[in-house]
Amino acid sequence: MFDRLEIPIIQGPMLGATAAAIVIAVSNTGALGSLAASSLPADRMRAAIAAIRAETTRPFLVNIFVLEPAHPDPAEVRAAMQRLAPWRERYGLPAQSIPNAWAESFADQFDVLIETAPPVVSFTFGCLSAPQVAALKGRGSYVIGTATTLAEARAWAAVGADAICAQGFEAGGHRGTFLAPVRQSLVGTIALTRSIAAELDLPVISAGGITDGAGVAAALALGARAVQIGTGYLLADESLANAPWRRAIETAPDDATQLTRAISGRYARGIENEFMREMRAVEDDIPAYPVQNALTQELRAAGARANSPDALSLWAGQSVKLARKGKAADITRDLWREAREVMKRNAERWTA
Amino acid sequence: MFDRLEIPIIQGPMLGATAAAIVIAVSNTGALGSLAASSLPADRMRAAIAAIRAETTRPFLVNIFVLEPAHPDPAEVRAAMQRLAPWRERYGLPAQSIPNAWAESFADQFDVLIETAPPVVSFTFGCLSAPQVAALKGRGSYVIGTATTLAEARAWAAVGADAICAQGFEAGGHRGTFLAPVRQSLVGTIALTRSIAAELDLPVISAGGITDGAGVAAALALGARAVQIGTGYLLADESLANAPWRRAIETAPDDATQLTRAISGRYARGIENEFMREMRAVEDDIPAYPVQNALTQELRAAGARANSPDALSLWAGQSVKLARKGKAADITRDLWREAREVMKRNAERWTA
Repeated sequence: MFDRLEIPIIQGPMLGATAAAIVIAVSNTGALGSLAASSLPADRMRAAIAAIRAETTRPFLVNIFVLEPAHPDPAEVRAAMQRLAPWRERYGLPAQSIPNAWAESFADQFDVLIETAPPVVSFTFGCLSAPQVAALKGRGSYVIGTATTLAEARAWAAVGADAICAQGFEAGGHRGTFLAPVRQSLVGTIALTRSIAAELDLPVISAGGITDGAGVAAALALGARAVQIGTGYLLADESLANAPWRRAIETAPDDATQLTRAISGRYARGIENEFMREMRAVEDDIPAYPVQNALTQELRAAGARANSPDALSLWAGQSVKLARKGKAADITRDLWREAREVMKRNAERWTA
Repeated sequence: MFDRLEIPIIQGPMLGATAAAIVIAVSNTGALGSLAASSLPADRMRAAIAAIRAETTRPFLVNIFVLEPAHPDPAEVRAAMQRLAPWRERYGLPAQSIPNAWAESFADQFDVLIETAPPVVSFTFGCLSAPQVAALKGRGSYVIGTATTLAEARAWAAVGADAICAQGFEAGGHRGTFLAPVRQSLVGTIALTRSIAAELDLPVISAGGITDGAGVAAALALGARAVQIGTGYLLADESLANAPWRRAIETAPDDATQLTRAISGRYARGIENEFMREMRAVEDDIPAYPVQNALTQELRAAGARANSPDALSLWAGQSVKLARKGKAADITRDLWREAREVMKRNAERWTA
């Protein structure tokens, strides 16, 4: 698969920010665009994949979350709703009712992957079974598993994944962790990439904290076959990030991001805002993903409509201050030009 | 200073593991050896610096901690001693008495730096004042401040430091954090290096998670002027790491390291052992460095004598599985050869 990429950069799948347009733009440069599909019901997922195929003949990636159906304790849900009530009031929302469904069906989404056979598929939040991986490969899809620890990379290798996406501690958005607790599964991108490359005979994709060309060159030096960049595309013209999210990125203070599970029930990295700070004390009591995510959905939408960042998911990685604006294709080509300049300059300086 | 290094590698100062011999060996290769001096009284510090000067004409570094005198609450100290009592019993130690001093005097150590004027000095755990930095520079020393966040790097820049050592989240041993709480000051090496390089007009040294040549090449790609390696020297012949510490490194399981403040009262990264696990629940109650550090000193020494890793400080960074044995000079030259091979190969592959 990597041989088909002219540019070893993957635009990371980001829920709420990436849809078909950016995938097409990035893939058409010779890099790899990614569709964040986990929030899509089967028919919209099918339609998005068809839209991408209509506009590019190059490889593209579709990412979904590996999720079990949620069966939350009603008392836990009520407590979570009570915590959110003052926030809903602030944005003029009515009293909350329990959602009809907590998340899209993983089984249905998996069936769409089998049916549509995207060139590249990647998975987060869990590990597939060996038969599931074999089924995807049988359809011609290249299968990437997301790992936040060496142990998780071994789990993906054991079920036959083609490659590992090493999600470092620095990465924005949700932690993909699925074996040990998240707080014990925080490994930096350098260490994670090198450990997996040293221990496993699988291609590694580095993700986390890489937002400019120097970072791309660094990840390739670590032995990554490709570099996944998320935050670096959030300000792209084709990004769907809403106005307060964009503004938070453009004005991010020093050391702006923190991990939180307050917004979705799963640890994720974002620019710290009032909601994250207020919920920190009760963070461990919040229901697990996807329950809290579903419960905060209307609130986040209302916050975005009010142009307020206070209750939004301002997902961003630790190199957020390096994010840049422009067309996704230009960003991709600029990142790659800069990376090549760094590689050339360092080789000339140190190996001549 | 960096122009005087033939190899842009700094052997990191590691308390308990590095003394004059490894500094001499590394500096004589053309890289930069570092003396970890913060545990030394003034006369031993003076002697170690003289010993280094007797054996090398090349630059070397002396590191101390920036510490205020400790005045712990007696009740807090008693509670800490009670927690340690069963552990002392396990290793046959008598009931603990309160140490005569909690730590060596920073003021005395600083005076030794002014008196002896090492070519390079670096500081951890705090920030000097501008007059202190000016005094060191007036003696001809090159002054490096350790920063774990961009805000801390700015603090060092404001007092006139010559360079910043960017200590990423992945690094082994003590966190140098001195502004915000440690749990909110965890930035990965890639993001920290890039952020500081982008925002400040000072040379950056990358530290954290770098233990092999690929990591060195990656840090140089990030724009680091030099790369600090600690864990990568712990198994060196000249390392003073004790037998159980070495064994723990050689047999480290996957994802072995965690942050703890149980051992010294200051967050540090090490291979998780029984003491760290047992103390996790009471970790926030433990007296701050240097008090807990002084209280566990005899216990750690007894553990080492008993050849037991259970109560030791097994400091190591996240790339611990990549540490290698051998003479420090050979390790240095091998790391640099590998780094240059990576730079050459990637430039040929991607920029030809």
